[in-house]
Amino acid sequence: MTDPNTVQLTEDGRLKHFLTTEGLSRELLTEILDTADSFISTQERAVKTVPLLRGKTVVNLFFENSTRTRSTFELAAKRLSADILNLDIARSATSKGETLMDTLWNLEAMYSDMFVVRHSDSGAAHFIAEQVTPNVAIINAGDGRHAHPTQAMLDMLTIRRHKGDIEGKIVAIVGDILHSRVARSQIHALRTLGAAEVRVIGPGTLLPSDIESMGAVPYYDMRAGLADCDVVIMLRLQKERMQNALLPSEGEFFKLYGLTKEKLAFAKPDAIVMHPGPINRGVEIESAVADGDQSVILNQVSYGIAVRMAVMAMAMSGQQTPVNSEEPA
Amino acid sequence: MTDPNTVQLTEDGRLKHFLTTEGLSRELLTEILDTADSFISTQERAVKTVPLLRGKTVVNLFFENSTRTRSTFELAAKRLSADILNLDIARSATSKGETLMDTLWNLEAMYSDMFVVRHSDSGAAHFIAEQVTPNVAIINAGDGRHAHPTQAMLDMLTIRRHKGDIEGKIVAIVGDILHSRVARSQIHALRTLGAAEVRVIGPGTLLPSDIESMGAVPYYDMRAGLADCDVVIMLRLQKERMQNALLPSEGEFFKLYGLTKEKLAFAKPDAIVMHPGPINRGVEIESAVADGDQSVILNQVSYGIAVRMAVMAMAMSGQQTPVNSEEPA
Amino acid sequence: MTDPNTVQLTEDGRLKHFLTTEGLSRELLTEILDTADSFISTQERAVKTVPLLRGKTVVNLFFENSTRTRSTFELAAKRLSADILNLDIARSATSKGETLMDTLWNLEAMYSDMFVVRHSDSGAAHFIAEQVTPNVAIINAGDGRHAHPTQAMLDMLTIRRHKGDIEGKIVAIVGDILHSRVARSQIHALRTLGAAEVRVIGPGTLLPSDIESMGAVPYYDMRAGLADCDVVIMLRLQKERMQNALLPSEGEFFKLYGLTKEKLAFAKPDAIVMHPGPINRGVEIESAVADGDQSVILNQVSYGIAVRMAVMAMAMSGQQTPVNSEEPA
Repeated sequence: MTDPNTVQLTEDGRLKHFLTTEGLSRELLTEILDTADSFISTQERAVKTVPLLRGKTVVNLFFENSTRTRSTFELAAKRLSADILNLDIARSATSKGETLMDTLWNLEAMYSDMFVVRHSDSGAAHFIAEQVTPNVAIINAGDGRHAHPTQAMLDMLTIRRHKGDIEGKIVAIVGDILHSRVARSQIHALRTLGAAEVRVIGPGTLLPSDIESMGAVPYYDMRAGLADCDVVIMLRLQKERMQNALLPSEGEFFKLYGLTKEKLAFAKPDAIVMHPGPINRGVEIESAVADGDQSVILNQVSYGIAVRMAVMAMAMSGQQTPVNSEEPA
Repeated sequence: MTDPNTVQLTEDGRLKHFLTTEGLSRELLTEILDTADSFISTQERAVKTVPLLRGKTVVNLFFENSTRTRSTFELAAKRLSADILNLDIARSATSKGETLMDTLWNLEAMYSDMFVVRHSDSGAAHFIAEQVTPNVAIINAGDGRHAHPTQAMLDMLTIRRHKGDIEGKIVAIVGDILHSRVARSQIHALRTLGAAEVRVIGPGTLLPSDIESMGAVPYYDMRAGLADCDVVIMLRLQKERMQNALLPSEGEFFKLYGLTKEKLAFAKPDAIVMHPGPINRGVEIESAVADGDQSVILNQVSYGIAVRMAVMAMAMSGQQTPVNSEEPA
Repeated sequence: MTDPNTVQLTEDGRLKHFLTTEGLSRELLTEILDTADSFISTQERAVKTVPLLRGKTVVNLFFENSTRTRSTFELAAKRLSADILNLDIARSATSKGETLMDTLWNLEAMYSDMFVVRHSDSGAAHFIAEQVTPNVAIINAGDGRHAHPTQAMLDMLTIRRHKGDIEGKIVAIVGDILHSRVARSQIHALRTLGAAEVRVIGPGTLLPSDIESMGAVPYYDMRAGLADCDVVIMLRLQKERMQNALLPSEGEFFKLYGLTKEKLAFAKPDAIVMHPGPINRGVEIESAVADGDQSVILNQVSYGIAVRMAVMAMAMSGQQTPVNSEEPA
């Protein structure tokens, strides 16, 4: 596959798709965060909508079901004044024998402007942006184990808003790193934005073998890994992994890697606790921590809308050729 | 549980949630009806939308499926220019092990302004408004056997528009009173708005034992109960109750309590006939009555949109703090 | 049933429903195409929405599932600025024992302005327009084997835009004519708009016995039927027909009636190839043709939105009485 940045950027380096945080410059990631910051302030007004995507058609293409993520993109699109079409792909024309590419070409022919794509195959969003519908802005809402860049960017925004900056911070990511597209996108963004150290904490079976080449430091012992951290990011445990014998049991996992007040005490006293949700209380995290003073989990949700608005607005702007855009009568 | 009116009213007595008709003052119920009246006139214009909830996010949270009621709230929200998110709770994150409270907190964090809640547990809407998300306006769209206040208020509006006033009228409610949240909300509203007499008609097994303490007069014989009535409200028969042997059979029920022209003749000649829908023709009501001159059943549907617009607009107004609400650029 | 044109036209001959192309005048069909042409140009602007149906409520009533067609109507309605309610009829109140007519009356009472109806019974849209809700504009989105008029009109628009005019053209329709509502609507429109010859090509079992009375010429041999054609319209093969032994096998069908480059060479060199989609590659059409220079299949999809916008706008205009339409405050 081509370098994602020749696909997701315009010739003058602006975003036209949002596929991955990997390889994006510090300037561009910072622009996303600054734009999202401005949308947080519009969210807090009585009228939350802005007209940036008025008259545009956004299609939610979720090949993998996720009510949570689909809803946040739907709200982000509506607050940008876009029209949104939710397609339940599993029940649509593809089941009538049509190929996926024909489905996408048809949606493009309906003058769609943007596809929000979630797919269980790594690289699906990249493939669509490069090979199938390059003139439709593609936003990756999670592809296989590869990337979940809007989640990573809302996490960056959370750190910046609660710790002032990402530069110089020690960040620990805890749990099933191996299967986590979120962790991959976070590590790239954290490295680019100047985190002092990115640690990944989990059992050996759930840490990728190439983790050090990504610039992260592996820890098998949670207390050691949390020492002096500014930020603790818990991952969601995919229960189906346990059935595959990659993990002993929920109870055993919680004992070793569940975030408790006792373990959190090893991090800095003002460390913040993050989780992409939905949380499994008592599996990855105990309620006293999830609902405690250091938790910013619900703030992440709020910032998630703003970050999605930001990348949607930026990618649409990058797609637009300077055509006549006056309003029809 | 706290007195619902300390929950659903602001300190200066305005609506900020709409949980129940019980305990609301005659002035407030009348304000709802007056506001709904004004929305009936906007519904009859070529452009039916008004901008009162522009930029607001309304979430339809139906834990119990009801296409009819959900659609009326969806239309009401759209005609107020709100953005609406329909969540099929049964298929969403709660099935991923997330608690209901976490789901609600997440929706609140997405800057939702209003939840329309339908739930099979009595008190669910009250609990959410008081304990979970007090800063989100909660509209009760039916909770267990407890209340269905928007249905009751559209019934009040129907009586007022077709009989001039509720004051002094004799109203009979017929059918399964015991299991009916609609009947409970109607009785409270009718009593507060000055109905001369509220009668409930049904078999002894389907009349609550405390019915007289609610201010209603029980009748077991339908013809006696209908005598001199101004308004006849038929309830929908829940067929599953019959399977539980609370009722002998549909045929037997219809013979005793089904509304026929013959039985209706015992009411006043200008009595109106109401039903919350969907109607079971030949079970609660014969077609000659449902489609006859005295039926206002379809008018109720029209007024239902206006009443929902009214309580949504009033509750949103009650929630709003005097913040800067100018429109973003 | 009444003559559809006494139902679908106003007294002065304007559209107020869109049920069938049969019997519509050349002038009216041309007006639809001209209006659709104007919407193609609005689709190509940066802001694709026009305010023609602002404040109107359109209900998608799909008794037969079709994600593709439903989505195109949803997008068309949104681009006209209408509010749209998607009803999954199979799961709605009709399953609670309510009759179809009660469901429709209820939707009408909610001040709906337009129903887009798809139904497996021939005549369903006509019946609703004439007998059930005559004051709601009905758009037929496919009824049984009878008609699919918006599909036919987008096909006419495709021919006009790519071949200059329909007048004088030789058009072949290939496949299962017998079960095709699309073919029926196409033949009527092509004859009215002055096509020189309409040919239908297929096995004897799949050509209706009255085809010549409709003004079409049957061909059993595809190469003979394609000779000198300007336009080749492939129909979608309904695979369930084959299970009913009306067809020998997919392979056999493709050999005789599948469109290949070899067979297409019998048509005029500049003939265009059309298909209503979704296409079955290798069954009705080979990929070299579907994706080839003569294919206008994806253009049809684009024009489909514009044609639907046109008939929705025209029917709504035909419904409107000259009432006070100023905007509410």
